[in-house]
Amino acid sequence: MGEPSVLPISDAEALELCSQKPGETKEFFFQQTMYRIKDPRKSLPFYSGILGMKLLTKLDFPSMKFSLYFMGYEDDDNLKLELSCKERISWALGRKATLELTHNWGTENDDNYKSHNGNAEPKGFGHIGIVVPDVYKACERFEKLGVNFVKKPDDGKMKGLAFITDPDGYWIEIFNNKTVAPIVESFKRD
Amino acid sequence: MGEPSVLPISDAEALELCSQKPGETKEFFFQQTMYRIKDPRKSLPFYSGILGMKLLTKLDFPSMKFSLYFMGYEDDDNLKLELSCKERISWALGRKATLELTHNWGTENDDNYKSHNGNAEPKGFGHIGIVVPDVYKACERFEKLGVNFVKKPDDGKMKGLAFITDPDGYWIEIFNNKTVAPIVESFKRD
Repeated sequence: MGEPSVLPISDAEALELCSQKPGETKEFFFQQTMYRIKDPRKSLPFYSGILGMKLLTKLDFPSMKFSLYFMGYEDDDNLKLELSCKERISWALGRKATLELTHNWGTENDDNYKSHNGNAEPKGFGHIGIVVPDVYKACERFEKLGVNFVKKPDDGKMKGLAFITDPDGYWIEIFNNKTVAPIVESFKRD
Repeated sequence: MGEPSVLPISDAEALELCSQKPGETKEFFFQQTMYRIKDPRKSLPFYSGILGMKLLTKLDFPSMKFSLYFMGYEDDDNLKLELSCKERISWALGRKATLELTHNWGTENDDNYKSHNGNAEPKGFGHIGIVVPDVYKACERFEKLGVNFVKKPDDGKMKGLAFITDPDGYWIEIFNNKTVAPIVESFKRD
């Protein structure tokens, strides 16, 4: 029996595991990623003013005492509609790659409330990732704006990619797909 | 002093909190959402065969004993390239709305390993969400395929949207942006 296996799955096996191509899912798309925030007065300026996302729509649920803030990178005439009208909700929830921030009312005043970022035990969720044209330039600006870093671009072995945190402590990877590809590809041959 | 405030932020204040529009973030985009999985032999067939995502690329890090699986809704010539070559990595990491599944080698054989889905204490991450053309039809198919439901489309007050779980227990919302908009909009007036 010995030790548990610590071998990766081969590329061929991975492709085989993904060989089913169901026709029924043809129009499916990955629309949102949701996590909870303590205080929108901190998170909204962070995601808009620092990361450049727009507030696509906002949904209040008074009977359940929570609100949802949908953030995303969009530049669209629908942003002129009233923030929480049906048309704007339908548009916002139909865009790819949005971030849904859930605010349970009152957590901002609750000293015991702290969001779990998934990277301490018990682990699960890890991070979201933002592609930027120039990682070093983006990170210089983040430093000036007082953003917290988990990893600066030149820390560790993986040069040229960074991790910052949002006001709740969620991790956000900052990278560029073209410059990161040869770096991560080289780790295969470690 | 009294009880902590349980009032939502008004639409006007939310828009004001998002009023900064930095020019430096013009080309930023939200590329990935990462969470950890116990066993790719369960997760890959789920995300491809059941949800219809493709395996965009796979990255192995032998020295750190983990692999990354990038999943997404793409139909592209780049899928014909070798799974883990530089060109395919660069392409995959440049697509919007991808799911990055992290597999730390050996967790599939570790009886003590369990991913934390963020919806039990300590809470943080909530779910990802998939838009489908017809929620009822999609959910009938999921039921036939033995998928686990947190909420079926007609459970609870919010009709027409569902939550399923992946093999690790992460929540996945199944909804349609057009049919859900009037429902969630109506909750404002609760």
